[in-house]
Amino acid sequence: MKNFDINEDPHRRFNPLINEWVLVSPHRAKRPWQGQNESISTESLPKHDPECYLCPGNVRANGVNNPAYKSSFVFDNDFAALKQDEIIFEEDIKHTFFKAKPEQGISRVVCFSPRHDLTLPEMEVSDIESIVKTWQKEYTDLGNIKYINHVQIFENKGSVMGCSNPHPHGQIWAQSSLPTQVEKTHNSLKSYYDKNKRTLLEDYVQAELKVGSRIVIENEHFVALVPFWAIWPYETMIVSKRAISKITDFSAEEVSAYAKILKQLTIKYDNLFNTSFPYSSGIHQAPTDGFDHPEWHFHMHFYPPLLRSATVKKFMVGYEMMGESQRDITPEKSAEILRQQAEVHYKNAVK
Amino acid sequence: MKNFDINEDPHRRFNPLINEWVLVSPHRAKRPWQGQNESISTESLPKHDPECYLCPGNVRANGVNNPAYKSSFVFDNDFAALKQDEIIFEEDIKHTFFKAKPEQGISRVVCFSPRHDLTLPEMEVSDIESIVKTWQKEYTDLGNIKYINHVQIFENKGSVMGCSNPHPHGQIWAQSSLPTQVEKTHNSLKSYYDKNKRTLLEDYVQAELKVGSRIVIENEHFVALVPFWAIWPYETMIVSKRAISKITDFSAEEVSAYAKILKQLTIKYDNLFNTSFPYSSGIHQAPTDGFDHPEWHFHMHFYPPLLRSATVKKFMVGYEMMGESQRDITPEKSAEILRQQAEVHYKNAVK
Ligand SMILES: O=P(O)(O)O[C@H]1O[C@H](CO)[C@@H](O)[C@H](O)[C@H]1O
Ligand SMILES: O=P(O)(O)O[C@H]1O[C@H](CO)[C@@H](O)[C@H](O)[C@H]1O
Repeated sequence: MKNFDINEDPHRRFNPLINEWVLVSPHRAKRPWQGQNESISTESLPKHDPECYLCPGNVRANGVNNPAYKSSFVFDNDFAALKQDEIIFEEDIKHTFFKAKPEQGISRVVCFSPRHDLTLPEMEVSDIESIVKTWQKEYTDLGNIKYINHVQIFENKGSVMGCSNPHPHGQIWAQSSLPTQVEKTHNSLKSYYDKNKRTLLEDYVQAELKVGSRIVIENEHFVALVPFWAIWPYETMIVSKRAISKITDFSAEEVSAYAKILKQLTIKYDNLFNTSFPYSSGIHQAPTDGFDHPEWHFHMHFYPPLLRSATVKKFMVGYEMMGESQRDITPEKSAEILRQQAEVHYKNAVK
Repeated sequence: MKNFDINEDPHRRFNPLINEWVLVSPHRAKRPWQGQNESISTESLPKHDPECYLCPGNVRANGVNNPAYKSSFVFDNDFAALKQDEIIFEEDIKHTFFKAKPEQGISRVVCFSPRHDLTLPEMEVSDIESIVKTWQKEYTDLGNIKYINHVQIFENKGSVMGCSNPHPHGQIWAQSSLPTQVEKTHNSLKSYYDKNKRTLLEDYVQAELKVGSRIVIENEHFVALVPFWAIWPYETMIVSKRAISKITDFSAEEVSAYAKILKQLTIKYDNLFNTSFPYSSGIHQAPTDGFDHPEWHFHMHFYPPLLRSATVKKFMVGYEMMGESQRDITPEKSAEILRQQAEVHYKNAVK
């Protein structure tokens, strides 16, 4: 019998945003790795690639030419998962097991820069600010469409995350329903707010700032931290300090503080394994259903797959799929490692 | 305005086992793929590999030699995610955000065969029967340990599923708590049973057999089908026709029928892309908490990542992680394709 040591002993942690547990096995980071290695592309990219369907002036799959855009550029996805068609549908309520309903929506692609070779950490803060403004505009425009109740802004970065084109870009899938993960978060935020009249994340950020050990970066308006309940080895979350329910409520100062922390966090990511660090990121914010959402609190998730090096990732497979998410390194340790990364991008470091 | 066509229009389907929705975009299977290709190993494996730590007689990481085993062989994982140590723990109930508790458990490895080169589809049915009997024994032995309330049997097959050794093997993680995914299923099964006095899957299998379009294989005691709410392109589930709550309740005939359907299903999988088909599989069955579980109904999930070919997989990334699972081909289409696969393994096919 020994006393519980959260840094050493296997344990479960609770994620209050989605009401799920994660298994943490701190000691397991020591096991050797004989499995699959990811291939990383070390080729340096051109500023403009004539073959790239996202570069300015080039032709896309549907035959349309991209404009000679100068900052960010948005277009409707040529292979959209959602469609705008209005569908006539009579629900068959007898079906216990075969419950289905049509879903209306719009998928867009957001090019972050005309430059084929520049990802977020290498862009100027002012360029990132203009991406944030594009996200604001899209959230407003799409959210204003009558049947759109949720706008999911996200980025898949790196081929290991299913991204098929290195040109820096993200996506937006806007739709009628709250997606499953968002609905879970919505319910948690709502019940916390109803009880406490403060947002869950307002209180959580305060609690984390007091402890300090999971904070990666802090500025006047935002915090980047490894959540206590993080699943992925270097998962982080950017949270606003103020209870802001959506990106369109940012002040000018907040837009700029957010752009800064985005750059700083992604620089640390790239520096971790001296590679263009792959991840999926996404913004969770208030639904666009026309109601006020004081319970919602703007946050952005980063789910990076890498575990040990630029080529060894964490596999979320058998046990994780059938049982629950499992991690091999504590969130505190990950936060410490990320904190220690230099603030200058490795490509620009003076050697 | 057009009428809803489930084979053509984007829609959401509901999974009553875990109460979650999945987005289905049938039309999207047509998009071209320019992203990452998986590497597949086409080298033929030796029957015995002197370097393999799972082969009979060889030495493992902890210096112990494997016995000269003849059928299946079980040992405690040398790099276990769970530990058997009893931990003293006083819950700090003040923590709303930092909820953690120690987890006690045992991780085991189950070698399926002394042969380094034989996966399930290529094994004899009698050999698969002996694996099923090993699973029965482990479920009993581990389940009898006082602090073990759940026994998760699973297999990660193929390097794309994080499997680091091609020697055919699965794993068992047994622990005190019901893992997150199992708890969700448990709650659904329980509330259905309490209301209907039949198991959810008993009624579901009957409903599926009536429709027919999602059935891949059926024998006297088991059905292999693509669930109406499947997430992965070629996801399947093997379900017992009878309401059996756990593997140890199988009759001798059921053991053999289960071994047969396991072989038939994995043959179809291999034949689909003429490759050793990767997947994670896992058995969901009654908790081992000492109570009766009439609501539980034995089933086995297969989550294979491949989408288009032996090298192109489905990426569950940005939207799927932030929003909800999304699939590009309907479950009905997948079931049809799997049904059409030959019953003889491609390696043994007469050309
Ligand atoms: O136990 P293994 O085979 O070393 O590891 C594999 O399966 C485990 C259980 O699903 C996962 O946690 C690991 O990420 C994966 O690489
Ligand atoms: O839309 P893309 O970049 O073609 O596709 C990528 O992102 C989508 C949204 O996360 C996923 O559904 C796809 O599996 C992935 O390959």
